[in-house]
Amino acid sequence: MLTGKHVVFLGGDARQLEVIKRFIELDAQVSLVGFDNLQTPLSGTMQREWNTTVLEKADILILPIVGTDDQGNVASVFCSDNLTLTRKHMQALPKGSLIFTGMARPYLTQLCAEFDIHLFELLDRNDVAIYNSIPTVEGALMMAIQHTDITLHHANCVVLGLGRVGLSLARVLHAIGAKVSVGVRCPDDIARVFEMGLIPFQIKQLEQHVSHADIIFNTVPALVVQTSAINKMQHDVLIMDLATKPGGVDFKAAEKRGIKALLCPSLPGIVAPKTAGKILAQAITTLIDEVMIKEGLEA
Amino acid sequence: MLTGKHVVFLGGDARQLEVIKRFIELDAQVSLVGFDNLQTPLSGTMQREWNTTVLEKADILILPIVGTDDQGNVASVFCSDNLTLTRKHMQALPKGSLIFTGMARPYLTQLCAEFDIHLFELLDRNDVAIYNSIPTVEGALMMAIQHTDITLHHANCVVLGLGRVGLSLARVLHAIGAKVSVGVRCPDDIARVFEMGLIPFQIKQLEQHVSHADIIFNTVPALVVQTSAINKMQHDVLIMDLATKPGGVDFKAAEKRGIKALLCPSLPGIVAPKTAGKILAQAITTLIDEVMIKEGLEA
Amino acid sequence: MLTGKHVVFLGGDARQLEVIKRFIELDAQVSLVGFDNLQTPLSGTMQREWNTTVLEKADILILPIVGTDDQGNVASVFCSDNLTLTRKHMQALPKGSLIFTGMARPYLTQLCAEFDIHLFELLDRNDVAIYNSIPTVEGALMMAIQHTDITLHHANCVVLGLGRVGLSLARVLHAIGAKVSVGVRCPDDIARVFEMGLIPFQIKQLEQHVSHADIIFNTVPALVVQTSAINKMQHDVLIMDLATKPGGVDFKAAEKRGIKALLCPSLPGIVAPKTAGKILAQAITTLIDEVMIKEGLEA
Amino acid sequence: MLTGKHVVFLGGDARQLEVIKRFIELDAQVSLVGFDNLQTPLSGTMQREWNTTVLEKADILILPIVGTDDQGNVASVFCSDNLTLTRKHMQALPKGSLIFTGMARPYLTQLCAEFDIHLFELLDRNDVAIYNSIPTVEGALMMAIQHTDITLHHANCVVLGLGRVGLSLARVLHAIGAKVSVGVRCPDDIARVFEMGLIPFQIKQLEQHVSHADIIFNTVPALVVQTSAINKMQHDVLIMDLATKPGGVDFKAAEKRGIKALLCPSLPGIVAPKTAGKILAQAITTLIDEVMIKEGLEA
Ligand SMILES: NC(=O)c1ccc[n+]([C@@H]2O[C@H](COP(=O)([O-])OP(=O)(O)OC[C@H]3O[C@@H](n4cnc5c(N)ncnc54)[C@H](OP(=O)(O)O)[C@@H]3O)[C@@H](O)[C@H]2O)c1
Ligand SMILES: NC(=O)c1ccc[n+]([C@@H]2O[C@H](COP(=O)([O-])OP(=O)(O)OC[C@H]3O[C@@H](n4cnc5c(N)ncnc54)[C@H](OP(=O)(O)O)[C@@H]3O)[C@@H](O)[C@H]2O)c1
Ligand SMILES: NC(=O)c1ccc[n+]([C@@H]2O[C@H](COP(=O)([O-])OP(=O)(O)OC[C@H]3O[C@@H](n4cnc5c(N)ncnc54)[C@H](OP(=O)(O)O)[C@@H]3O)[C@@H](O)[C@H]2O)c1
Ligand SMILES: NC(=O)c1ccc[n+]([C@@H]2O[C@H](COP(=O)([O-])OP(=O)(O)OC[C@H]3O[C@@H](n4cnc5c(N)ncnc54)[C@H](OP(=O)(O)O)[C@@H]3O)[C@@H](O)[C@H]2O)c1
Repeated sequence: MLTGKHVVFLGGDARQLEVIKRFIELDAQVSLVGFDNLQTPLSGTMQREWNTTVLEKADILILPIVGTDDQGNVASVFCSDNLTLTRKHMQALPKGSLIFTGMARPYLTQLCAEFDIHLFELLDRNDVAIYNSIPTVEGALMMAIQHTDITLHHANCVVLGLGRVGLSLARVLHAIGAKVSVGVRCPDDIARVFEMGLIPFQIKQLEQHVSHADIIFNTVPALVVQTSAINKMQHDVLIMDLATKPGGVDFKAAEKRGIKALLCPSLPGIVAPKTAGKILAQAITTLIDEVMIKEGLEA
Repeated sequence: MLTGKHVVFLGGDARQLEVIKRFIELDAQVSLVGFDNLQTPLSGTMQREWNTTVLEKADILILPIVGTDDQGNVASVFCSDNLTLTRKHMQALPKGSLIFTGMARPYLTQLCAEFDIHLFELLDRNDVAIYNSIPTVEGALMMAIQHTDITLHHANCVVLGLGRVGLSLARVLHAIGAKVSVGVRCPDDIARVFEMGLIPFQIKQLEQHVSHADIIFNTVPALVVQTSAINKMQHDVLIMDLATKPGGVDFKAAEKRGIKALLCPSLPGIVAPKTAGKILAQAITTLIDEVMIKEGLEA
Repeated sequence: MLTGKHVVFLGGDARQLEVIKRFIELDAQVSLVGFDNLQTPLSGTMQREWNTTVLEKADILILPIVGTDDQGNVASVFCSDNLTLTRKHMQALPKGSLIFTGMARPYLTQLCAEFDIHLFELLDRNDVAIYNSIPTVEGALMMAIQHTDITLHHANCVVLGLGRVGLSLARVLHAIGAKVSVGVRCPDDIARVFEMGLIPFQIKQLEQHVSHADIIFNTVPALVVQTSAINKMQHDVLIMDLATKPGGVDFKAAEKRGIKALLCPSLPGIVAPKTAGKILAQAITTLIDEVMIKEGLEA
Repeated sequence: MLTGKHVVFLGGDARQLEVIKRFIELDAQVSLVGFDNLQTPLSGTMQREWNTTVLEKADILILPIVGTDDQGNVASVFCSDNLTLTRKHMQALPKGSLIFTGMARPYLTQLCAEFDIHLFELLDRNDVAIYNSIPTVEGALMMAIQHTDITLHHANCVVLGLGRVGLSLARVLHAIGAKVSVGVRCPDDIARVFEMGLIPFQIKQLEQHVSHADIIFNTVPALVVQTSAINKMQHDVLIMDLATKPGGVDFKAAEKRGIKALLCPSLPGIVAPKTAGKILAQAITTLIDEVMIKEGLEA
C-alpha cells in the first residue's frame, strides 16, 4: 500500500488511466495535472493546476510514456493547455522524490541529474519491453491487415531484428500462417530463428532477401532498409517501420520508388491502452516496492 | 484456356478485378458492365452498356459475390448506375450459358431455374468456404484489435460454431495467445476443440460461459446469443457477429444493456480483396474446367 | 450412479484398469474375469472364473478394445488362460444387457445380432476416435523419433489422410517444426490443409510427392502406398503405417527396396494406457447414461 | 576447401560420422583413430593406430563431444581399445594445430593451455547450443512419452530454466498441447514466458508449483529440485533431468519418496545422431574458416 504517498500525474494518454487507477487502489494521494477533459472523473483523485505548488509535496511524479520533448513540453490528450516541465518545477520537487516515464530525452535526463532526482525509464527495462511487445505486435498485425489487399496467411513477411519486439512479432506472424524470414546480425539469432521454424538471413545481405517480400516489418533502430534493398523490392510491397523515430527505413528512397512505407509509433497506446497501461502500472509499482525495500521503508 | 469464350462481368467490388485478370490470362473475351469508374483500365477487356445485347453472345455471366438483391439489383462499387438483372436479360442469355455468383437470393435462383440456366453458387462449395475463412479470420482479428482497448493475447475469447470459419478463427486466436473457448453442439466438435487445446462447451449452455468473456465471436447463422446470455456478460465485452445477416445475436438486447455488438459482413472483400478475388477466380475456373470436361468440350 | 448394476469385465490391457476404476466410482458391482495376475488388486471388485454363471446376472459386459478374434478368443494381458466368448455365453446373458468393445469382428457382431444383445463399438464413434487420435499421435511421434537418426524438426514429413488421426498428426508435426505435406482426395481437404499452413497434394499423385520425404505417415485404411510411389522414395525414408491391419502400405515392395516400413498398431494402449482408458471410460459411461435416459431408467 | 589439411579424428559416436563426411567433402586428408569396428568403411579416410606418429603431421585434432574424462580417456563406440590422450600426444602436435571437442574437462583445458594449442569447445558457443537444443527437445519428448502412461497433451508440465534448451522445450510442449509452466529467476524471463502464452513462476518458489505436475523437466545446471519441492509432488510424477551431470535434482530424495527421476544425458546423440553430427560439422567448419581468415590463409 502507498498510503500517505503523494503522486502527481502530469499529462499522458489513455494508458495513464490504468496507472492512475492502480495508485488509487494502493491508497496513494493522487493529483492530476493536464487531465481537464477527462470524460468520467476519477473519484479519489484531485485535478490540479500546473505550477510548482503541486510538486512541493510530491513523492512521485509520473510523466507520459514519451516523457518530455527536447524543450520540456509534456503531451496530454486530456487537455489543450501547454504543459512544460522546467527547472523551476524540478527545484520544487522534494529531495528523494522519484520521476517515472517511458523514455527520457536528454532534456529530462540532464534536469534529473542536475537536481539529483531519481529518474526511472520504464521502457528501458527488459521485462517492460517484453510485455510491451505484445500490444506492439497486435498493432502491427492490425495495420498490416489494414494496409494490404492480401492476407497475412501465406504472405512473404520479412522481420528485421530479433529483439524483444522482433521475437514476438516473428512468432505471431508464423502462427497466423505467414511465411516469415528474419534478418539478424549474430549467429545466435540465426540459430534461434531456425529453431523457431523460420528462415534466417544476415541483415547486411538484406537486398538479397526482399525481392519476393509482401510486407517488411522493421524493428531495428538503425538505418537498415537502405536504397540498395528498396530498389530490389516489388512495387506493391508494404514497409512498416516499428522502430522509434527516425526508424530504420530510408523513407525518401521508398517514396521515390512509390513504395508504401509507414512509420508506426506508439502502437500499444493506440490498440490496447488498457493492457499497455496495466503493464506500466505493474512496472511502476514493482519499482516503487523495490525502492521502498531498499530504503527500509517497508518495515 | 478459354479462347473463344465470351465472359460478361456485371458489377462487383475489388475482388472481381482478380477474377477478370484471370479470365484475361486464360484468353477469354471479356466484357465489363458497371465498371465505368475503374481507375486503371484493364487492357484486354471491353466496357459495355447494361442491356440484353451484351448477353446474347455470352457463354458465362459473372455476378458479384452477393449476387442480386430480392429485386434483382446488382451492386457495383465501380459505377453509380442502377444495374438490375431482369427476366428479359435472362431470356437473352443463350441456352447452356453459365452464371457464377457467391450466394444467390431466391430471386436469382428462381430466374435461373425458370430459364434453365446453370447457376453456380461459389460460397456453397466447402472448399471455397474454407479458403474464404482465411481472410474472414484476418478481418475478424483486425476488428477485434481495433474495437477493444486490451490485447487479444490473454483475452478471454469465446468462439461460437466450429464450422469452416469457426475452426480457422479458433486456431488463430489460440496461436496469438488468447484464451479460447468454443461453443458447439455435437460431441465430435467437443472432442475436436479439446484436441486443439481449447476449452469446449455446449452452445446451448452459452449463458454459463460468458461471464468472463472479453470478446465473443459468433459464426453460427442462427439466433444463439440471446438475452439470457447477454444478461450474464460483462458490460465492456465486445460481440462480433460474423454470421451472414441477420446474424446470430440479439442486437436489441445487447443495445439495451449498452453492450457493443457489431455485425461484420464481407470481411474478405474489405481486408484482402486481392486474396479473396484469387480464391474466387480459382474456384470459377476449376468449375468451368469441370463443366467443359463433362461436356466433352476439352477434347 | 450405477448402484445395483452388475458389470463384467472380460480381459483387456492396462487401459481397462481406468474403465474399471470409473465403474467402481460409479458404485457398480464389478466382476473381473481374466485379471488373475493383476499386480495390485482393485478393491471393490471380485475376481471370477470364466463361465456362464458370471454372466447370468450381468447388466453389462465389457470386452477389450480389440473385442474378440474371428474364433471368439478374447485377449488379456493379465492372465494366461484362454478366454473364449461362445454361443453358450451369449445365451447366458440376460435380455437387455449391453456389450461394449472397441471394434467388433463379424464373429461378435453376428452373435450379438442373433441373441439380440445391444453391441456398442466405441471406436466407431467420431468423438472417441478424435480423443483417441491424441495418444495415437504421441505414439507416432515417439516411434518416429526413435526410428530415425534425424530430427523431426525440419524433416520432410508426408501425412496420408486428413481424417481424425491425420488432422491431429499433421497439426502436431507442423507445431514441432517439421515440413509437412498432406495427401488427401477431396478439394475440401486440400483447402483445409492449405489453411493449416501445410502443403496439400492429391493422394493419387503420391508418387510425385515422395522423392524428398524423410518420413511417411499413413493413416488411410486402403492400399495407397504402392510400388510406384515406393520406387520414387529415398532409401533411408521411414514409412510408418498407422492404419489398422493390413494397413495401407505395400510392405513387400518396401522390403524389396530395403526401405524401413513399420506397422504401428495400438499406439494409445502402448504409450498412454491411462489416458486411453479414461477416454474409453468416459465414452462408455456417456453411452450408458444415454441408454438409461432412453429407457426412462433415470427417474 | 581444406585441401592439404590433415585432420585426425580420435574416437566418438555416430555423430562423428557426419563430421568426417563433411571433411571428406572439403577434401581434407582424414585419419581415423578408434574407428576399427566401423560397419561401412568411409572411403577417403585412413584407419590409424593411436600413437604420437599420427599426430605429428596433424593440423586439426577432433575429439568426441564429451572430450576426455579427468584422466584423459577418450570414449569411442567404434572400438574396444582404451584411448588415452596424454602429455606425450600433446607434445607431438605441431604448433598452431587446433583441437575441437564438445565440452572440455579441466584435464584437457590445462593440457591445451600448457602446450599452447588452440582448443575450441563447441557446446560453449551459443549458436551450437541453440541448434543442439532441437534434438535435445525431441529426445526429451520421446522419453516423456515412453515413461508416462498419460499423454503430454493436457498434462501439467513444469519446465525449469528458460535458457537455450528450456526455451525450445517449453515452446514444443505447448505446441503439443501440454499445460506448461516455467520456473525462472529473472523478471525478463517471467515476461517472456508470459508472452509465449505459458505460466511463469519464480524458481525459488518451486515447491508451490509442483503439486499438480505430471512431468517436471529440469534444464538448470544447479540443484534446484530439492527435498522441499519433491515432498510436495504427486507420487506418480515423472522428473526428467536434462542438465549435465550431476544434474539439478536431488535424486536421493526422489528415490526415497518412490518418485521416478531420470537423468537424461546425450539426447541429441541418441535420438538424432545425424542431425547432431551435422550441427557439429557445420560449427567446426565455420570456426576453421574464421581461423583461416584471421590468419590470412584464405587469400
Ligand atoms: N512502434 C511501437 O509502437 C514500438 C513499440 C515497442 C518498441 N518500439 C521500438 O522498436 C524498436 C525495437 O524494440 P525492441 O524492444 O525489440 O529493441 P531490442 O530488443 O533492442 O531489439 C533491437 C533489435 O535490433 C537489432 N539491431 C540493433 N542495431 C542494429 C544494427 N545496427 N544492425 C542490425 N541489427 C541491429 C538488435 O540486434 P542485436 O541483438 O544483435 O543487437 C535487435 O535484434 C525500438 O526502436 C523501440 O523503441 C516501437
Ligand atoms: N462476415 C464475413 O465476412 C463472413 C465470411 C465467411 C462466412 N460468413 C458467414 O459466417 C457463417 C459461418 O460460416 P461457415 O462457413 O463457418 O459455416 P458452417 O461451416 O456451416 O458453420 C456453421 C457452424 O454453426 C453451427 N450451427 C449451425 N446452426 C446451429 C444452431 N442452430 N445451433 C448451434 N450451432 C449451429 C454449425 O454446427 P454443426 O456443424 O453442428 O451444424 C457449425 O459449427 C455463415 O453465416 C457465413 O455466411 C461470414
Ligand atoms: N495405430 C493406431 O494406434 C491407431 C489409432 C487410431 C486409429 N488407427 C487407425 O488409423 C486409421 C485412420 O483412422 P481415422 O480415425 O483417422 O479414420 P478416418 O477419420 O476415417 O480417416 C481416414 C482417412 O483416410 C482417407 N481415405 C479413406 N479411404 C481412402 C482411399 N481409398 N483413398 C484415399 N484416402 C482414403 C479418408 O479420406 P475421406 O475423408 O476423403 O474419406 C480420411 O482422410 C484407421 O485405420 C484406424 O483404425 C490406428
Ligand atoms: N541432456 C542432454 O542431452 C543435453 C543437451 C543439451 C544441453 N544439456 C544440458 O542442459 C543444461 C541447460 O543447457 P542450456 O543450453 O539451456 O543452458 P543455458 O542456456 O545456460 O540455460 C540454463 C538455464 O538455467 C538457469 N539457471 C542457471 N543457474 C541457475 C540457478 N542457480 N538457479 C536458477 N536458474 C538457473 C539459467 O537462468 P539465467 O538465464 O537466469 O542464468 C537458464 O535459464 C546444461 O547443463 C547443458 O549441459 C543437456
